[in-house]
Amino acid sequence: MQVMETKILNLLKENSDSFLSGEEISRQLYVSRTAVWKHIQHLKDAGYEIIAQPHLGYRLQAVPDKMLPDEIGYNLNTKIFAKKIISFSSTTSTNDVAYKLAEQGQDEGALVVAEEQSRGRGRMERKWLSPPGVGIYASLILRPKITPIEAGKITLMGAVSIAKIIRKLYGITALIKWPNDVFIENEKICGILTEMNAEQDLIKFVILGMGVNVNNDAAQIPPGATSLKIQTGRQINRIEFFQNVLEELEAHYVKIIQREFDFIIDEWRNLSLTLGRRVKIKRESKNIEGQAMDIDENGALIIRDDFGFSHHILSGDVQIER
Amino acid sequence: MQVMETKILNLLKENSDSFLSGEEISRQLYVSRTAVWKHIQHLKDAGYEIIAQPHLGYRLQAVPDKMLPDEIGYNLNTKIFAKKIISFSSTTSTNDVAYKLAEQGQDEGALVVAEEQSRGRGRMERKWLSPPGVGIYASLILRPKITPIEAGKITLMGAVSIAKIIRKLYGITALIKWPNDVFIENEKICGILTEMNAEQDLIKFVILGMGVNVNNDAAQIPPGATSLKIQTGRQINRIEFFQNVLEELEAHYVKIIQREFDFIIDEWRNLSLTLGRRVKIKRESKNIEGQAMDIDENGALIIRDDFGFSHHILSGDVQIER
Repeated sequence: MQVMETKILNLLKENSDSFLSGEEISRQLYVSRTAVWKHIQHLKDAGYEIIAQPHLGYRLQAVPDKMLPDEIGYNLNTKIFAKKIISFSSTTSTNDVAYKLAEQGQDEGALVVAEEQSRGRGRMERKWLSPPGVGIYASLILRPKITPIEAGKITLMGAVSIAKIIRKLYGITALIKWPNDVFIENEKICGILTEMNAEQDLIKFVILGMGVNVNNDAAQIPPGATSLKIQTGRQINRIEFFQNVLEELEAHYVKIIQREFDFIIDEWRNLSLTLGRRVKIKRESKNIEGQAMDIDENGALIIRDDFGFSHHILSGDVQIER
Repeated sequence: MQVMETKILNLLKENSDSFLSGEEISRQLYVSRTAVWKHIQHLKDAGYEIIAQPHLGYRLQAVPDKMLPDEIGYNLNTKIFAKKIISFSSTTSTNDVAYKLAEQGQDEGALVVAEEQSRGRGRMERKWLSPPGVGIYASLILRPKITPIEAGKITLMGAVSIAKIIRKLYGITALIKWPNDVFIENEKICGILTEMNAEQDLIKFVILGMGVNVNNDAAQIPPGATSLKIQTGRQINRIEFFQNVLEELEAHYVKIIQREFDFIIDEWRNLSLTLGRRVKIKRESKNIEGQAMDIDENGALIIRDDFGFSHHILSGDVQIER
């Protein structure tokens, strides 16, 4: 969206309880009344409900239920994240787009969002169902000055931030299933997919991708999954939710680049669905079964098997036994 | 190079002590004598010295001093590495080319080589001087089923393999400066640059890049570096050296994917120039000075400072104090 449209939109937002005349807008933004009228038409085309009343002017009635840059960025309290937003009504995968942009030198904090993904991806090359208009499909470009071995914390912070915001905004107990899926009860509501481009001791960039089921109805989610709408029984404001997530993510990210890793690990522990439970890890070689004891500083799950041996599991699927 | 040219070349190699008639080649390879003649011309154009004697036939006199796929692959004793070779007389950086090919799905083991690099790169976005015809500039595409945290072993195996082959073939004591530069005396002869594309717990691919100063004269290397030619006083057969390196690398790689990590770490320790020395690490925050004690299982350098505290250093430049 053009800069001038954003400015007009923000003026209308600040005055949403009253009418704002075209003359007033024109005066404040140093632009002709004809131009104001044209920009207003564009905003309407984008889905903004704007009433035009003769002699009174314009009033913003409603914003569209869309992940628009102007909405995500409006009053967003971040310094690094989402200062640049690239949005799509539909794309293949926000992670793929963000990865390519990062390769081309796009700045840290740039955000890619889409209303729909045709090839949404989850961990281990699985699909992530991404129906239009109901979920959050977003990827951040990060350039942390930490080593590739330490990058696991970025993944942990994704799940931690989203679980915390779900609790804070909706009072729902969201927990993290190792390594980084967010669950409500025993159903998945969010997945995190981090992808990294790194030399041996230097991260070039990390893409932090999120998929959240927000306003999905039962028919729009795979078995074993849930959505915020199903859990709360009401339509969720995706922008409000996502702005909170971005602010929480940035607060965690600042700690990570200051190397306060223990903080992230502790928060993860507090929100874990897995720790203390009897689990089974399916692996190509042989399965491991036992008690999930802790995670180590790299984010590996520590399991004590029935013979008392400890295993540090870096990768795999956890099945939590009843 | 075409398959038929490779076949003719290999026939000539097997009979390099005698002449082989065009008729005989034509008979063995089911191809016309005119075609044989044409392929021989192509081989000559590529730099092969082939004598054609009336009534006797063809004899291979000399192969060009070039990193040609037909030479690298000839009698190479590997199962995975360099089964496919993509070669350039000049390219930007073999790592860049290999990375792009890997993104497009190129198989594990594929090798990219070049006679010259216009933008040869070392660790931490430094340049790697890559003059034409004298060095080895090569990158392997690897798809190991290990986690990103474990990928450091790939870097270690690069330096270990090259140091071992320099010792084996030329009897020169090559040592590894942490993390992965190969040194002779106090001069650098080889750098390793690994680059990784990974999800949090899944490596998509690793590019293992190598730059070796082989036949560089003093004017063709930067200060603080050396070459195999300078060290041995003679012209080195780059193909022979590189074939040995590829075979050694594959032997190590097979151990890594079988998760025999201790083996790599032990070999690295035995070849280390750094361990036991007093070192200084320059870092953005503050320098660390002390005794280099060991490396840990992730390849981090363990330094004991003058107050007795241990530091695990994952990234940085080591200065070895006298």
